[in-house]
Amino acid sequence: MQNFVSTHDVADISALIDLALKYKKNPSADKSLGIGKRLGLLFMNPSLRTRISTQIAAQNLGMESYVLNVGNDNWQLEFGEGAVMNGTTVEHIKDAAPIFGEYFDIIGLRTFPGLKDRDLDYSENVIRSLQMYCNIPVVSLESATLHPLQSLTDLITINENWNQPRKPKVVLTWAPHIKPIPQCVANSFAQWVNAWGKSDFVITHPEGFELDAVYTKGATITHNQEEALRDADFVYVKNWSSYQNYGQVKQDGAGWMLTEKHMSLTHDARTMHCLPVRRNVELSDEILDHPNCLTTTQSANRVWAAQAVLSELLRSQ
Amino acid sequence: MQNFVSTHDVADISALIDLALKYKKNPSADKSLGIGKRLGLLFMNPSLRTRISTQIAAQNLGMESYVLNVGNDNWQLEFGEGAVMNGTTVEHIKDAAPIFGEYFDIIGLRTFPGLKDRDLDYSENVIRSLQMYCNIPVVSLESATLHPLQSLTDLITINENWNQPRKPKVVLTWAPHIKPIPQCVANSFAQWVNAWGKSDFVITHPEGFELDAVYTKGATITHNQEEALRDADFVYVKNWSSYQNYGQVKQDGAGWMLTEKHMSLTHDARTMHCLPVRRNVELSDEILDHPNCLTTTQSANRVWAAQAVLSELLRSQ
Amino acid sequence: MQNFVSTHDVADISALIDLALKYKKNPSADKSLGIGKRLGLLFMNPSLRTRISTQIAAQNLGMESYVLNVGNDNWQLEFGEGAVMNGTTVEHIKDAAPIFGEYFDIIGLRTFPGLKDRDLDYSENVIRSLQMYCNIPVVSLESATLHPLQSLTDLITINENWNQPRKPKVVLTWAPHIKPIPQCVANSFAQWVNAWGKSDFVITHPEGFELDAVYTKGATITHNQEEALRDADFVYVKNWSSYQNYGQVKQDGAGWMLTEKHMSLTHDARTMHCLPVRRNVELSDEILDHPNCLTTTQSANRVWAAQAVLSELLRSQ
Repeated sequence: MQNFVSTHDVADISALIDLALKYKKNPSADKSLGIGKRLGLLFMNPSLRTRISTQIAAQNLGMESYVLNVGNDNWQLEFGEGAVMNGTTVEHIKDAAPIFGEYFDIIGLRTFPGLKDRDLDYSENVIRSLQMYCNIPVVSLESATLHPLQSLTDLITINENWNQPRKPKVVLTWAPHIKPIPQCVANSFAQWVNAWGKSDFVITHPEGFELDAVYTKGATITHNQEEALRDADFVYVKNWSSYQNYGQVKQDGAGWMLTEKHMSLTHDARTMHCLPVRRNVELSDEILDHPNCLTTTQSANRVWAAQAVLSELLRSQ
Repeated sequence: MQNFVSTHDVADISALIDLALKYKKNPSADKSLGIGKRLGLLFMNPSLRTRISTQIAAQNLGMESYVLNVGNDNWQLEFGEGAVMNGTTVEHIKDAAPIFGEYFDIIGLRTFPGLKDRDLDYSENVIRSLQMYCNIPVVSLESATLHPLQSLTDLITINENWNQPRKPKVVLTWAPHIKPIPQCVANSFAQWVNAWGKSDFVITHPEGFELDAVYTKGATITHNQEEALRDADFVYVKNWSSYQNYGQVKQDGAGWMLTEKHMSLTHDARTMHCLPVRRNVELSDEILDHPNCLTTTQSANRVWAAQAVLSELLRSQ
Repeated sequence: MQNFVSTHDVADISALIDLALKYKKNPSADKSLGIGKRLGLLFMNPSLRTRISTQIAAQNLGMESYVLNVGNDNWQLEFGEGAVMNGTTVEHIKDAAPIFGEYFDIIGLRTFPGLKDRDLDYSENVIRSLQMYCNIPVVSLESATLHPLQSLTDLITINENWNQPRKPKVVLTWAPHIKPIPQCVANSFAQWVNAWGKSDFVITHPEGFELDAVYTKGATITHNQEEALRDADFVYVKNWSSYQNYGQVKQDGAGWMLTEKHMSLTHDARTMHCLPVRRNVELSDEILDHPNCLTTTQSANRVWAAQAVLSELLRSQ
């Protein structure tokens, strides 16, 4: 593996899941693999879980990690080719990125979309520019349109909670929210579940909240939430703002909040959410406090997902 | 020891002081005790001394520490049971806390009081909620009403600076300040000195600045600063805002500033303050620059206090 | 070496360059030198490159490093002797500094000038106060008027890119900028190149942008940029605001931007800049993207400069 930005970087998703589960059983299985190697973690947007879980993963492999928080006014990066930098940007990615390549062996990047200009966000210009100029493997810690470490975590969690011979029915359901939220977790979940290929995958959302077909192709898509939830084994709940009317929030979506009533339609489904979650807006208390809720397990599994990814990148160097 | 939030968590204060002094003599006495263990340090309010001294203590025991600064707009926690989270809070403590339990073996928390609503502050809802949901030992790095690591440090400092057969006279004196300051350092000092029980303990403050009797019970309390200081061996100087008129600042308290004149009443007393201190407002330069001033020693002892506490928590796991 | 604040702290600059180049070949040559030692890194102003490169240097020597970001409203230090601290400052350097001496073995400090009051900035009151009260070696991570780690890095870079028997011609040229920039990098480069003494050193800048002669004495100074650049082997490009009209920005300096046309006058010179650089304002794209540009090498060499300095300080303890 040369980078970790989307499913296209992964030769064998099932093998990566197995590696993560191996680390879950034995965190120090490869405790010397990363000795003398350095991981840079570049946050252009804030992070708690992602930072800590990735730092623990690095530590389990013997790697040193270094955090750079750059998402503030002090360090605005320029991405435009040929830009005359007489405005607010203070450094060009062409000058900054190669230095990360000198200091680190692997670099992780978190960057959020602006949710104003769809073409700009979906061009992934920030993470792509870093990849172009840094000369070392790049790990997405969530980018404008995808969140592959979360999706790998989600597949690990589904995998360890399913032991029946038949394929599980996995449902991704849109949920209400009060703010414009990126599509990245939903895009990425769809991309990974489709690429994994070991489930019956259904996506449900209100009209006007269709995701980019690049990611959803292969899934069954319906606007009928009840129909989608029927006999589900796993229900992944997530809000996203509109891709069509880019960044728009649905004002009248409260009925989509998942409650016990919805869950009674399912096959005693496990519920999932990437967190943070707004209680009684996206999901009701009764679901989050129910033993079938996997959110804590998902967050815990972030460590093993990151450890498997770093391990593969280290082995490929 | 299962947690470290107040004196009630400590079976034997004198033994804990002795352990800290053992580490002061030999910092690496238990350098393998914490290997493979992780300490999370969650700061809802800023910290310099507390963070560094606790990280050094962890390092001395072989523990890895991870700092999370969450006291900003990006991560407002919800504490209300059943809350509909359609406002400014983005994550419920019920969802956040269990994850700390997955990532860490021990968690430290700093949280300040708002000084607006006494019942809310004194309910200690933040640290208590963390304790309720995180499933691992919690160390207070200063909470709304108590600062036990500071108080343990203070007792360590008094202990190593006293070698006479009689009990020392320890005086806690209120000092002026220009801003509303929490009662926590004063509450906590009173609680620990009383629980320790090896001093003649006097508290002096202006009228209307009585502390909660829960902490002060057992001490002699007087509004007469001169009388209190007479023959003192240790003088602990600290401002606090009013507990009765909650959060109120005393405007006409300048006369309470400790000067050499006050010190001449004492038994050549050592002076103490938890820092940071406002010179020539709380204490005069002449006292802070005098060899009897123990403030640097107190700050240095924060390492050994934290190391003793982490050590006890690790041994109890 | 007892401190690292200017050339005056260094007995033998060439030996320090050689030590840095030894570490560049073998980063782990002294991997046990700093075991059990702690480096504090105190940032009163933000830093990315300096922080990371210095942390890597410490790690290469087995030292633990601890970062303190204090350049915000939460921790305003007081420097005035006898100050009555009833305003915005919350802690006196006399109380804060000794604690660093208790926690750390070496302390690094970054502090920027205000660019309003020349006498205050050039008094270097912040770093000098830290030196006065902390009782441990102080490393400048950039101070109000000097940036010695950058200058050492620059000499390392010139050294490893020069293998001819004659002395290189080294030119420091002023460049345009839109904001008031400190003189420290330019002052420091001049001081170090002069103290090193192994080049023909020319400084060129517009009228009114003369640097303090304390640093430039020994260099040839001219307002004629073309004449300065002729036959140059190394061209160091840097903006600085006026020292005479303290902090003033030159509004009509665009013609000083270095382009390929300027470079054609040189002896196929290598170009240098400390970064961050504003493209097409200070330097044109064509120079920064040219193989002769050494900026990435300079940034990479920050690690070896810091490692040589920390190594010397550790050996002197």
